[in-house]
Amino acid sequence: MFASRPVVHPMEVAAPAPAAANQAQQQQPPQQPPGVLMKDLPGMPGTPSGLALRVTQLLLAAISLAAMSSTSDFASVSAFIYLIAAAILQCVWSLSVAIVDIYALLVKRCLRNRRLVTLFFIGDMITCAGTFSGACAAAGITVLIDNDLNICSENHCSSFQTAVAMGFMCSFCIAPSFMLNFWSVASTRVLAA
Amino acid sequence: MFASRPVVHPMEVAAPAPAAANQAQQQQPPQQPPGVLMKDLPGMPGTPSGLALRVTQLLLAAISLAAMSSTSDFASVSAFIYLIAAAILQCVWSLSVAIVDIYALLVKRCLRNRRLVTLFFIGDMITCAGTFSGACAAAGITVLIDNDLNICSENHCSSFQTAVAMGFMCSFCIAPSFMLNFWSVASTRVLAA
Repeated sequence: MFASRPVVHPMEVAAPAPAAANQAQQQQPPQQPPGVLMKDLPGMPGTPSGLALRVTQLLLAAISLAAMSSTSDFASVSAFIYLIAAAILQCVWSLSVAIVDIYALLVKRCLRNRRLVTLFFIGDMITCAGTFSGACAAAGITVLIDNDLNICSENHCSSFQTAVAMGFMCSFCIAPSFMLNFWSVASTRVLAA
Repeated sequence: MFASRPVVHPMEVAAPAPAAANQAQQQQPPQQPPGVLMKDLPGMPGTPSGLALRVTQLLLAAISLAAMSSTSDFASVSAFIYLIAAAILQCVWSLSVAIVDIYALLVKRCLRNRRLVTLFFIGDMITCAGTFSGACAAAGITVLIDNDLNICSENHCSSFQTAVAMGFMCSFCIAPSFMLNFWSVASTRVLAA
């Protein structure tokens, strides 16, 4: 974790001279290395609420995956296979970031580094687009089966609906992470400029 | 247009005293009213590239709408009706913002105001989500008809595919506007803080 930085100092160090500290304060935000965001908003990586968001995303994607793969005829519709693939990708991504979050919380490290936040932003954008598009495509098919053709009795409509609903809820859960990371990227670029 | 501000001064005014200007410069960025972004990135509202983006969005949404509504059986599938509704909303929104952009370019006014940019950001987010979800849902149905069921001969597959492709291209065209507006909102909030 070269990209993270310690929140607490493990050793006591001598405080800088008041004159030097005053001079440094005028050039950059107080006690703030360049390229690191000042405010730690709830939901950002490395915060307990950020970890909670990741765990929620993981659970919702796993429920969507389980509900869709429990049906016997999902393989006959491409949109359902796509939703399953998107849910697997979402599970892997959310689990990875959750592990990083747990590590950061345990060793009290801050993840508000520009490179890390950009990586999280790109990952969130890809998985959010994937899960949302998968849920939309599967929703189109489910509405076609349920409302337009009325052949719900021959299909596993309740499982399809559960998978679609969990897929949508999962993508709504990624949206805050994505927005906060993009906010961080924009802020750090502006502060560093 | 109370929220916009003139780029050029219509009259010559006396320059402020150097001492007062120096004092003002220390409190806020140079020649920058509070809440207004410093840089004018290409693609932002009020720029020629921003207007080009809006016109492209409008054209793509109009082609998608025309291709889908030219088929006789779109009304039997909910996803196709939803795509038509989303394309109409997109046309209305892009046309409105394009008119504002043309006005701003003609009278040389700058639209980088915090309230206006927030309004554009929210509108872009809603229309982008609508068009993208409509295109995804319609794509799910089109792939079902074309690849999974192989009943393309009985349906207007080419029209459906054109409408879906234009819907996706339209949503990819809104994404830069949405991102740039969100970037502006984040930057102005950080600079104003």
